[in-house]
Amino acid sequence: MLNSYCVATYRCFDEKADFTKKARGIAVGLTVGSWTDLPEAKKAEMQRHLGIVLDVQEHEPASGAPASDRYADIQIAYPDANFSRDIPALLVTVFGKLSMDGRIKLIDLSFSDSFLSAFPGPKFGIQGVRSLLGVQDRPLLMSIFKSVIGHDLSTLREQFYLQARGGVDLIKDDEILFENPLTPIEKRVEICMQAAAQAEQETGQKLLYAVNLTGPTFSLLDQARKAIDAGANALLFNVLAYGFDVLSELSRHPDVKVPIMAHPALAGAFYPSPHHGISANVLLGKLLRLAGADLSLFPSPYGSVVMPREENMAIKEVLLTEKASDYTVSTARLQAAGALVDAAEQRDAAELKLKTSFPVPSAGIHPGLVPLILRDFGDQVVVNAGGGIHGHPMGTIAGGQAFRQAIDACLAGESLRTYAERHPELKAAIEAWGIKE
Amino acid sequence: MLNSYCVATYRCFDEKADFTKKARGIAVGLTVGSWTDLPEAKKAEMQRHLGIVLDVQEHEPASGAPASDRYADIQIAYPDANFSRDIPALLVTVFGKLSMDGRIKLIDLSFSDSFLSAFPGPKFGIQGVRSLLGVQDRPLLMSIFKSVIGHDLSTLREQFYLQARGGVDLIKDDEILFENPLTPIEKRVEICMQAAAQAEQETGQKLLYAVNLTGPTFSLLDQARKAIDAGANALLFNVLAYGFDVLSELSRHPDVKVPIMAHPALAGAFYPSPHHGISANVLLGKLLRLAGADLSLFPSPYGSVVMPREENMAIKEVLLTEKASDYTVSTARLQAAGALVDAAEQRDAAELKLKTSFPVPSAGIHPGLVPLILRDFGDQVVVNAGGGIHGHPMGTIAGGQAFRQAIDACLAGESLRTYAERHPELKAAIEAWGIKE
Repeated sequence: MLNSYCVATYRCFDEKADFTKKARGIAVGLTVGSWTDLPEAKKAEMQRHLGIVLDVQEHEPASGAPASDRYADIQIAYPDANFSRDIPALLVTVFGKLSMDGRIKLIDLSFSDSFLSAFPGPKFGIQGVRSLLGVQDRPLLMSIFKSVIGHDLSTLREQFYLQARGGVDLIKDDEILFENPLTPIEKRVEICMQAAAQAEQETGQKLLYAVNLTGPTFSLLDQARKAIDAGANALLFNVLAYGFDVLSELSRHPDVKVPIMAHPALAGAFYPSPHHGISANVLLGKLLRLAGADLSLFPSPYGSVVMPREENMAIKEVLLTEKASDYTVSTARLQAAGALVDAAEQRDAAELKLKTSFPVPSAGIHPGLVPLILRDFGDQVVVNAGGGIHGHPMGTIAGGQAFRQAIDACLAGESLRTYAERHPELKAAIEAWGIKE
Repeated sequence: MLNSYCVATYRCFDEKADFTKKARGIAVGLTVGSWTDLPEAKKAEMQRHLGIVLDVQEHEPASGAPASDRYADIQIAYPDANFSRDIPALLVTVFGKLSMDGRIKLIDLSFSDSFLSAFPGPKFGIQGVRSLLGVQDRPLLMSIFKSVIGHDLSTLREQFYLQARGGVDLIKDDEILFENPLTPIEKRVEICMQAAAQAEQETGQKLLYAVNLTGPTFSLLDQARKAIDAGANALLFNVLAYGFDVLSELSRHPDVKVPIMAHPALAGAFYPSPHHGISANVLLGKLLRLAGADLSLFPSPYGSVVMPREENMAIKEVLLTEKASDYTVSTARLQAAGALVDAAEQRDAAELKLKTSFPVPSAGIHPGLVPLILRDFGDQVVVNAGGGIHGHPMGTIAGGQAFRQAIDACLAGESLRTYAERHPELKAAIEAWGIKE
């Protein structure tokens, strides 16, 4: 009986382990449980459930480095027959027990076409978000409320209006703003969308407001409906506090007719350790896109809360790629390793069916960083700022304008400094925070 | 305006940070956003939303240790006014953004009485589980299926029967057994409960079968109803793959009329790093009890997949304690730090209203470890074995019996070796695996 396979790659540290043996132990232990002592007839029957070692790449410590730096990257293919087509089942299979077994980190995941096909992915994606905004030709600009806790509706409305007037494309709630008596979600949406309409009359520009979807899990769908009925045109979601599957269910639901922005709150509990957890490209990249995030926020390498640049680039790659081979493993490779591949289910497609998701590098962003962001991310990026907008010496409106000017300068191929000569908002921003190139 | 507070304790590593300043930055940054530049009138209004630094304990590196070992334990009180009474809101507030901000680990959480009162906790707890089984006077014994993937109903039934005949009190599904055509949940429950009834006729002993609750999040409640209607008298749940809130919602639902066993799959992505993540006593202890787990599984310090003994003991403490002070912070302490405490909401109660949860140290357990387990955990523990039952030289039934004999020996104050002279099953187990004391 043929099968299709999802593949997990682990970085496994051990001073003296026999990594090949360890890999075989994983492949058997996390699938059929035991193998060598099975009778031959049983083996034939169980073969389709058996994990397959695809690769073991050993890395000895550099000279002078401690023996504890010794590691191997181990790649195991897991038969789809073993798990249902949802992210909890996949994660529990490939990293449930194993996550607790020594120094081991999940560094990549690939999927069969058959598994992938269970996920519609982002409902809007980059193109859909651009279409809603009517902006095709430049990176987008997002701003974050300055402070929200303890503030009332009129303060929020004022903050919202100032941000909108500055020309931002998206405004997001603070992720720590929950259901509260001062600014309940329906009222908040109502007054913020009023402010958006007012600003649009003045700027001619559309805007998405991502309101924070919070509360008990089984009420999230109702809460989303309520927000959307009140006029919300986007949602912010703390996906890691709720689980990937909740995002996956929300994003595929027909009533959720707006883009979803995934916030990385709690992600630092998973990705920063070299020895444990799940790497950022899996956590905030592949799994989020699979689960249907239209935008994925993550700490930029530029600011205060920092993620290394190469990890940012890895997230970007998997959010933007349209090559199916970045998300799947080739039938030939699986067959070469002895897997009983059903080529129709595994399928070596050229193009990924999932829409792309916007990368949103965040934290510590000011206009002087825009050239760097665009160089690293290209045009398919959302430039996202909080303090870099509200803290502008000339105020919040000028803060947004300075960013838009910085983006325009880059698109025109002009240096920020030259461009700033004719644009006082950008000039003031550069004087305040400098330029980093 | 008075308030109540939940408290987070962090271990924060930094070679040269001013930890007092860092603590103040957290207290302000994760609550009102800014403080010193607020006008006095605004301060008075925002005071009740302001985080409070409760404690900063600096630890310089031991002599000879690297400077990077320098750390501080920082304790911050967060006003309940800032978040809704659910675990995602609390976690996002106290460790959302902060989890990504350098080397920092969430090592403890305490709650106001007001926050706690939103959580009914375990529906059964230790006493409830004991009552269902009619066993009051000894540690319980649980066994795990040997291998399940790729096996059909009749093989499962046979495995189940043999385990039940050996005298175990609980049998759990493998956490990697998902909805599948060979052993769908309703059929599985039906045949396993038949096997349980058959065994009960022979042993006179009741048994709980924790069937694995899996699939899409928004269908879990229906799936649970289905399993319970089919006769399931317990549920196994991969809580970390779904989020604490899902457990919390399931456990409090009136239709979920059976105990819930929380599996630690994926927990290793959170707790093992000293520098990142969430410590095991919070993850598999306090939060699970709050969310309503009647039993909490975790890697024992004795076997193959290992968690250090002191972490096991910390989990045990918070699952078993009945002292409210282990879960709350005293009003006096908060007031001394300048918090505007509402004593009625904070409440210094003597006893915790949450039922206790069974600790279930797991992995690598054989009968020769029972004295150690009982010494570490006392009587309120579930001894849990897989290979230590199925791998018994005389077979699975004898495997269960050997464990029951080991438990009886300990309760009788007899050494395993002496007891084994009159009990061939225990004798064979000791010959196979030895005794560790």
